[in-house]
Amino acid sequence: MKLSKLVGERIKENPSGASLKSHILLLRAGYIKQVSAGIFSLLPPAQRVNLKIQNIIREEMNAIGGQEVLFPVVMPRELWEMSGRYTSIKDEMVRFKDRTGHDMVLGMTHEEASVHMALNTIKSHDQLPFMIYQIQTKFRDEARPRGGLIRVREFTMKDAYSFHTSQEDLENYYKKVFDAYVRIYKRIGFKKFIAVKSDTGMMGGKVADEFMAVTDVGEDRLVICPHCSYSSNMEVAVSVKAQNDGQIAGELEEVFTGNAHTIEDVCVLLETDPAHTAKAVCFKTETDGKLVVVFLRGDYEVNEIKLQKLVRSELLPVDVEEFGLSGGNIGCLNLHLPEGSYVFFDETLKGLENFVTGANKKDFHLKNVSASRDLKDVEFVDVSFVKEGDHCAFCGHELKLTRGIEIGNIFQLGTKYTQSMGMKVTMPDGTTKEPIMGCYGIGVGRSLASIVEEKADEKGLVWPMTIAPWHVHFCPLRMDNENVSAVADEIYKKMLDACIEVLFDDRNVSVGIKLTDSELMGLPIRVIISPKTLANGQAEVTLRESGEQLFINLSDLISELKVLIQDEIDEIEEYAKSPKITYSEN
Amino acid sequence: MKLSKLVGERIKENPSGASLKSHILLLRAGYIKQVSAGIFSLLPPAQRVNLKIQNIIREEMNAIGGQEVLFPVVMPRELWEMSGRYTSIKDEMVRFKDRTGHDMVLGMTHEEASVHMALNTIKSHDQLPFMIYQIQTKFRDEARPRGGLIRVREFTMKDAYSFHTSQEDLENYYKKVFDAYVRIYKRIGFKKFIAVKSDTGMMGGKVADEFMAVTDVGEDRLVICPHCSYSSNMEVAVSVKAQNDGQIAGELEEVFTGNAHTIEDVCVLLETDPAHTAKAVCFKTETDGKLVVVFLRGDYEVNEIKLQKLVRSELLPVDVEEFGLSGGNIGCLNLHLPEGSYVFFDETLKGLENFVTGANKKDFHLKNVSASRDLKDVEFVDVSFVKEGDHCAFCGHELKLTRGIEIGNIFQLGTKYTQSMGMKVTMPDGTTKEPIMGCYGIGVGRSLASIVEEKADEKGLVWPMTIAPWHVHFCPLRMDNENVSAVADEIYKKMLDACIEVLFDDRNVSVGIKLTDSELMGLPIRVIISPKTLANGQAEVTLRESGEQLFINLSDLISELKVLIQDEIDEIEEYAKSPKITYSEN
Repeated sequence: MKLSKLVGERIKENPSGASLKSHILLLRAGYIKQVSAGIFSLLPPAQRVNLKIQNIIREEMNAIGGQEVLFPVVMPRELWEMSGRYTSIKDEMVRFKDRTGHDMVLGMTHEEASVHMALNTIKSHDQLPFMIYQIQTKFRDEARPRGGLIRVREFTMKDAYSFHTSQEDLENYYKKVFDAYVRIYKRIGFKKFIAVKSDTGMMGGKVADEFMAVTDVGEDRLVICPHCSYSSNMEVAVSVKAQNDGQIAGELEEVFTGNAHTIEDVCVLLETDPAHTAKAVCFKTETDGKLVVVFLRGDYEVNEIKLQKLVRSELLPVDVEEFGLSGGNIGCLNLHLPEGSYVFFDETLKGLENFVTGANKKDFHLKNVSASRDLKDVEFVDVSFVKEGDHCAFCGHELKLTRGIEIGNIFQLGTKYTQSMGMKVTMPDGTTKEPIMGCYGIGVGRSLASIVEEKADEKGLVWPMTIAPWHVHFCPLRMDNENVSAVADEIYKKMLDACIEVLFDDRNVSVGIKLTDSELMGLPIRVIISPKTLANGQAEVTLRESGEQLFINLSDLISELKVLIQDEIDEIEEYAKSPKITYSEN
Repeated sequence: MKLSKLVGERIKENPSGASLKSHILLLRAGYIKQVSAGIFSLLPPAQRVNLKIQNIIREEMNAIGGQEVLFPVVMPRELWEMSGRYTSIKDEMVRFKDRTGHDMVLGMTHEEASVHMALNTIKSHDQLPFMIYQIQTKFRDEARPRGGLIRVREFTMKDAYSFHTSQEDLENYYKKVFDAYVRIYKRIGFKKFIAVKSDTGMMGGKVADEFMAVTDVGEDRLVICPHCSYSSNMEVAVSVKAQNDGQIAGELEEVFTGNAHTIEDVCVLLETDPAHTAKAVCFKTETDGKLVVVFLRGDYEVNEIKLQKLVRSELLPVDVEEFGLSGGNIGCLNLHLPEGSYVFFDETLKGLENFVTGANKKDFHLKNVSASRDLKDVEFVDVSFVKEGDHCAFCGHELKLTRGIEIGNIFQLGTKYTQSMGMKVTMPDGTTKEPIMGCYGIGVGRSLASIVEEKADEKGLVWPMTIAPWHVHFCPLRMDNENVSAVADEIYKKMLDACIEVLFDDRNVSVGIKLTDSELMGLPIRVIISPKTLANGQAEVTLRESGEQLFINLSDLISELKVLIQDEIDEIEEYAKSPKITYSEN
């Protein structure tokens, strides 16, 4: 490809409105162009990366027996009503009426379509297990698209669905997909990624893992144990909470605290710290408007995801006065709640001594509360977020909190969709059974942007050899020099003949522009020739990632380039052979 | 791939509601499944064909310098307002509001998106020409989806857009795309296809060609000259009309015809034939409600596409009495029309003698009308359809009328989109110019269905080797026989090791089911082993298309299969080397 004809433009300045590295660089290097909020066109270099990532995914899905199919983008309402999701999914799903007035939706996921394909097609247990997958455009009407390709409304996704006759079979296959995912991310070039347990959310399943590109700019909060293999999305992370092994300090004492209603104010007034308080956090259930009160140590935060599971409802904010309580003075002793209310004591209170809580009386708090003495019949539950300083529940080491971008997820779905859509297969004993499903997604564009987040540096993009749009950026300097331009044409032709994927900067522009553009575009190998290198019969070869520089005789150039390219591909493929996640900070 | 796990079901009976061969067979062989009217899922075999067709298209687009990109499926109203098509395209385009109330559309074509990509990105003449293309899902809300994949609402399409600084440059590139298209269809396996001149319709361009799979079941009517290279869509076809070299028969004569208002009734009454009448066909312009009267020979039909171009408006039905005319008695002599009305005399009347026309008087017609005498100042125009018996306007031979399915089209667009969207490039002399565009489409799914129409026989599908989902259908009979099943497993493994694309019918079902299924699914080569063939150390190999049968020693099987596969691929590729269309009836 000649750069002079490549559609796209390199821009020097950071575009306004972009803050993420991947967003800025993909715009500046001419890889993407925004068409609407969260909707982008991919320019030729990005589409080349996109197709290469798709091919890696396709190969690994095929290797575990996946059968590629294509589901529709547009589906009729009826299909989504069978599963109940036509109403349960809110504004993220686009709905419209077709010209006949029929309700249609834009697919944001394809569980229903996958069961529809299997329904009446797969009838017998011996046709199972099987996995079908597609790589396709999806639309999800995100409320807050942001970050370039990180959080978009339209995106290319690989989604896969497996069908099994037993939970055991699903679990075996789930493990295979897990391993395939690890290979996929490694082959794409990721080093900093992990798999975490996650909440199953609207998918309605039980076990789920998320694959996370670990980066400070990620939207997801992650908990990692640097010692054992434990890692988790903050939403479902567990930990051994930092304990305060205090003494029982004395008798309960009611103290006037007046307008001090927040933990901070109370701590200042009573000369203590949030770790020696039990705060109350209140909600109302969405389903039936019941009051929910959670007590937890003052320096922790309520994890609403965990709490929702206990009350089996979404949670709404509440005005506690409505329920006859004194806001700012709610405490864990002598609390009188309306019938049907929920009250939970978080495990951060377990063993806590000598702490402060509300007195359930306007303007008063209690001092010297003791969990062992005053809360001895209480059952403690885990409804708090993990916090810096907590320890691993499995190995005891101190946990690390970090952030990540979700680049894939896998779910054990159960029978939610086969049951609601009436799919059954005949078992060997003649009975029928609803197949148990797994589903498995990878965001292609988000993977592309996340690898940029991991690899790019201050000069621009840095592509791994396996997904680089081209392998070589051929950059002859001084194209106005007849010798340079003649040799350049000759070398370019040889590269094409040798099937080297090359971007040829055939422009007659300044050295500065050529070098800056090449660093910005991020191809793995840059080859420079100039009057100076030609005088030595050489080309200057620079590796984008390491910065390593080589001078290679022109006669060996093509063969040496082929070796450099193949060596990096081999290295990545070798690394990908093991499905072990070897994430480290470095 | 083992057939026992292949998602999809072979069905014996013809599905109700399907009449086209491709629709019936793709359903019966387990290739497609309908999700909604005009919306299908592709099962694994169809998706394999789909990807192979896409790859052929991709290779040929890249070979003529095409740069693959990806435009969004969902686009904002603003983009389509710039070109004026937000309002000019009617119900076929899906419109919806996103969660913020913003008007969005589903892309049914991407001229606007392609200009958007180039806008502010391409600035100078030396960046032109260039061509960008994508292969992507489109949605077009067809009023009457039908025929399986032939006329759908959702489909995969390759759409390409080229940009040029001169008409000459566009025309040169247009020719290259034309040739690439011919190679694409040949490589897919088409023999019966042609290119025809066509109407540019809503695309708003000037020159356009359509590629047509020639088949009796096509929706498009085609005109072909079997002698010279002339071929055309009926909509714009021209011809030398069958002449009647009659004599002037005598004086004009007004005759009472009473209730005989149709050509048929008048002919019976006056003992003549439609070829000796001049009928009047009337319309109203949509733009300003003007009357349009067309006179043409009674055995021809008005071509509204041609007529619309003359009056520059869509046409509506009309009640002629409103305009003071006597319906059924309108004639081409002494006609008095309201001011501003249009009247056209079709060239079928040129040289016509001794004919009947309305007398422009209730219940009367005129006899013995003579074009040379009574219409001597008239300018004849071409507003009629070509008819069986007409002759080629270029070589004089008799034309053939047939039908076709449009499998691709190419347009010289002009500056409609660059102008309306304000895209300009700087020319060498410092002036600016709006690039001239071409656009080029191929329907992937429709090509898939059309090749089925061409190749399939009464037993089922027949795939050309270049796009077959698998090359070999391996069909061991009597899998309950231990020897057969052991040898089968061994051969299957060897095929996989040799990278032969094979579908292995590993089921233990009857010979009849196995053979019928293999014929229905249509893979190019069937390999049978059975206790009988194994006794001779042989496999029975049948070529699906020709029916040719070979017995091959097991020791040579793998190498022979590779030769058979490669030979057919080579043959197709050789045939595709010439961009000449070599359509023949046989």
